[in-house]
Amino acid sequence: MTMDAIEIRYEERPKLVNPIFIEGLPGIGNVGKLAAEHVIDQLKGKKFAEIISKHFPPQVLIEDDGLVRLVDNQLYYAKTEKGKSDIVILTGDYQGLTPEGQYELSDFILKVLKELNVKKIFTLGGYGIGRMIRKPRVLGAATEENLVKQMKEVGVVFSRSEPGAGIVGASGLLLGMGKFYGMESVCLMGETSGYFVDPKSAQAVLEILSKILDVPFDYEELEAKAKQIDSITSRLREIEAKVEKQEDLSYIG
Amino acid sequence: MTMDAIEIRYEERPKLVNPIFIEGLPGIGNVGKLAAEHVIDQLKGKKFAEIISKHFPPQVLIEDDGLVRLVDNQLYYAKTEKGKSDIVILTGDYQGLTPEGQYELSDFILKVLKELNVKKIFTLGGYGIGRMIRKPRVLGAATEENLVKQMKEVGVVFSRSEPGAGIVGASGLLLGMGKFYGMESVCLMGETSGYFVDPKSAQAVLEILSKILDVPFDYEELEAKAKQIDSITSRLREIEAKVEKQEDLSYIG
Amino acid sequence: MTMDAIEIRYEERPKLVNPIFIEGLPGIGNVGKLAAEHVIDQLKGKKFAEIISKHFPPQVLIEDDGLVRLVDNQLYYAKTEKGKSDIVILTGDYQGLTPEGQYELSDFILKVLKELNVKKIFTLGGYGIGRMIRKPRVLGAATEENLVKQMKEVGVVFSRSEPGAGIVGASGLLLGMGKFYGMESVCLMGETSGYFVDPKSAQAVLEILSKILDVPFDYEELEAKAKQIDSITSRLREIEAKVEKQEDLSYIG
Amino acid sequence: MTMDAIEIRYEERPKLVNPIFIEGLPGIGNVGKLAAEHVIDQLKGKKFAEIISKHFPPQVLIEDDGLVRLVDNQLYYAKTEKGKSDIVILTGDYQGLTPEGQYELSDFILKVLKELNVKKIFTLGGYGIGRMIRKPRVLGAATEENLVKQMKEVGVVFSRSEPGAGIVGASGLLLGMGKFYGMESVCLMGETSGYFVDPKSAQAVLEILSKILDVPFDYEELEAKAKQIDSITSRLREIEAKVEKQEDLSYIG
Repeated sequence: MTMDAIEIRYEERPKLVNPIFIEGLPGIGNVGKLAAEHVIDQLKGKKFAEIISKHFPPQVLIEDDGLVRLVDNQLYYAKTEKGKSDIVILTGDYQGLTPEGQYELSDFILKVLKELNVKKIFTLGGYGIGRMIRKPRVLGAATEENLVKQMKEVGVVFSRSEPGAGIVGASGLLLGMGKFYGMESVCLMGETSGYFVDPKSAQAVLEILSKILDVPFDYEELEAKAKQIDSITSRLREIEAKVEKQEDLSYIG
Repeated sequence: MTMDAIEIRYEERPKLVNPIFIEGLPGIGNVGKLAAEHVIDQLKGKKFAEIISKHFPPQVLIEDDGLVRLVDNQLYYAKTEKGKSDIVILTGDYQGLTPEGQYELSDFILKVLKELNVKKIFTLGGYGIGRMIRKPRVLGAATEENLVKQMKEVGVVFSRSEPGAGIVGASGLLLGMGKFYGMESVCLMGETSGYFVDPKSAQAVLEILSKILDVPFDYEELEAKAKQIDSITSRLREIEAKVEKQEDLSYIG
Repeated sequence: MTMDAIEIRYEERPKLVNPIFIEGLPGIGNVGKLAAEHVIDQLKGKKFAEIISKHFPPQVLIEDDGLVRLVDNQLYYAKTEKGKSDIVILTGDYQGLTPEGQYELSDFILKVLKELNVKKIFTLGGYGIGRMIRKPRVLGAATEENLVKQMKEVGVVFSRSEPGAGIVGASGLLLGMGKFYGMESVCLMGETSGYFVDPKSAQAVLEILSKILDVPFDYEELEAKAKQIDSITSRLREIEAKVEKQEDLSYIG
Repeated sequence: MTMDAIEIRYEERPKLVNPIFIEGLPGIGNVGKLAAEHVIDQLKGKKFAEIISKHFPPQVLIEDDGLVRLVDNQLYYAKTEKGKSDIVILTGDYQGLTPEGQYELSDFILKVLKELNVKKIFTLGGYGIGRMIRKPRVLGAATEENLVKQMKEVGVVFSRSEPGAGIVGASGLLLGMGKFYGMESVCLMGETSGYFVDPKSAQAVLEILSKILDVPFDYEELEAKAKQIDSITSRLREIEAKVEKQEDLSYIG
């Protein structure tokens, strides 16, 4: 009688060839979401479904035209050249708010992917290291040994102690639970300070993904965003430096 | 075997003509609730149902005569002149305490409205701007382009960046979820500091609503409440000013 | 397949004459629990059921003999003289931890009471006033006008603005939800500072209850407990006074 | 349609003789988990099932080879000499995150144990005393008087006021709820500061368990871990002492 905890509304039921799934939801440095949105943009992805859920905040967003939409997760698809796998991309406004919500949402999405005949998953995210970084590495985790090997070949770093706490949220659960659905998966994590939205980290992740999918990406837009962020952060550092100097002087004075 | 998460108890099953729904529950500046109660008062609304729920606080309120009642949400109706739409109004003591509760309550209410044949929804609320304001604007959001247009014509402001965070709670969900029930909706948000109960903001919202419904409201009572609040806040500012002055003097001294 | 959210285990199925229900669970000043335990003690109540629940903390308590028992709520009954109502008493280790748990537990208990043919409920609790008090009044709230009248006659205070926030928890919900089960109820709240366990406030509540039930209680034990608490609090005040004096001196020095 | 709140995946269905169950999950000083892992190690336990649940954090862990696994609880069994009871051991990454989760997980595990024909349970844990301790005692709690007696004979301490707050979590619930499944149980709690992982406390618990099960354990590995912890804590104390000394000097200076 009450609404389901999670509901999907299809705008289209795409027929996909050997589809690969890419997830990028909000998280550390928003790396995963930035990267997933870039993939949608570059591959001209088409939205085919929206997922709404009691596990998201009870909130509507207001678009520029004054129209509202419920916060949601969205599924896009992109057709690729003949012979290559089609792509399904998940992005959205929020992840589930509670542990239970996280589990249920990941399980729900895996059931949708099963229907779409997805057999391979890439989840994208950030790995917060608590300091600014010039050249972010891309760390990996996977469900199969051969995937670890393949990822190392394209430059993904597998490091024994990183990330020590494992992977929290959808990027982790889709791997861990995907196994029960017969899907093999990789998580790609771009290093990021964790203090800012980090387009540079997203680009690092995408450069790896580009090699894996054998699809070229243009990074102009991400580079522009990165410059914006850089200019903001460097201005912040200047102000900080001035304040510290003044404090020093007043102390001397 | 246990109680339902949400229960409705009808005192009456009104027959309504082409009813329009107005929601005003507690929220920022209590603008929505003040406005909804004023509509009930002005249109001599009659309570026809109470909604109790596990999603509300586990609490009874004590009336002046020493009698208790469970915290609840209440539904009222008001018959209007021939040819005009009847009105259904929702107000209450609380909104749902959890995200899940918020979703379930909004869905429950939409099912009730569906039965009543409601096709149009106005949700009323406050938009907190963090500073005192003399002439509160009324901001809007809607589910249809033509509604945005109609609202602009009666003075509702649609502003690209406001409210940036969207609309949280029942005033938002009823719009976002109402779409799935074939209802078109508008949210009217009166600007308010967010620090006090704000009858002035409620009046601004009601002046718009009065134009939309083509029903005149008398604002005497709200204006009296506004004066009370004004006198309290101005006294607070005087005390604040005195304290600051004394602190200045002691500093000089 | 999983355990029910609430389970009751009967040790006995008592046959009761026109039973009255008394609730006293942990709360402000532990007034309700102290009072309910005193009633059990004075009327030689016999435990007939235990209620365990996922809504309680996941905890066992260790008795003096080293044996454990799950935290629970307990139901007792006491037979009275011919012609008088038998008594059912509820006390326990905890109230439900969440709003939802509170609602479900109260509803569960009301269903149990319905089976026992209970028609009248007294819930006992404390009313925190934030300062020490010599002669605690007993405030009331009820479900029927005639009950308000009867309570006033035995000295219960019905005060327009107290308690302003209503009654939170089982003592309130049993009244508010009891109405749906055709039960009439009264909540008796002893004034208490809210800082300590308050046997004096419990005694004030019991003195009223004694008049209502026409059953005499002996307060020796409660008076002894009150003396203990008094001696602790007065020692605390002495220490506090000394500390303040020293601070004053050091400031002068 | 959604996943169950708790799922078990069997790798094997062992046939066990008169099995005894030992639980050691993360908790105070990690005493229980250290002890359970030591039992598995010493008795060459074989994993036969994994339990995943929405009540655990939404997280995967990354193994040294870069492969992920969902956080879970694991069941092991160990065959013993003829005539002795086989052993079933539970350990894992987390306990349930919520009270409700704790109850459901304990109930789930008890159902699994019922199927395995378990009649006796030992839960292992730490008892935090808030200060360093050289010779940790092992405190006990049990479901039957004769068990209390037996435990005292092997050196378990039953102390009236300890632990005053009872036992929180799986180590307590399995005892309290095990009674409903006809299982008799003992909780063994090693004293621990609660500030560090405490192999010394785990060893104290195991020395008792070794007597009960009449199975010898080798403690070399635990002693090595204890030395590591000791060296870390003593270095911390040295640093602390130096810092304090410097602060004293600067104060004098």
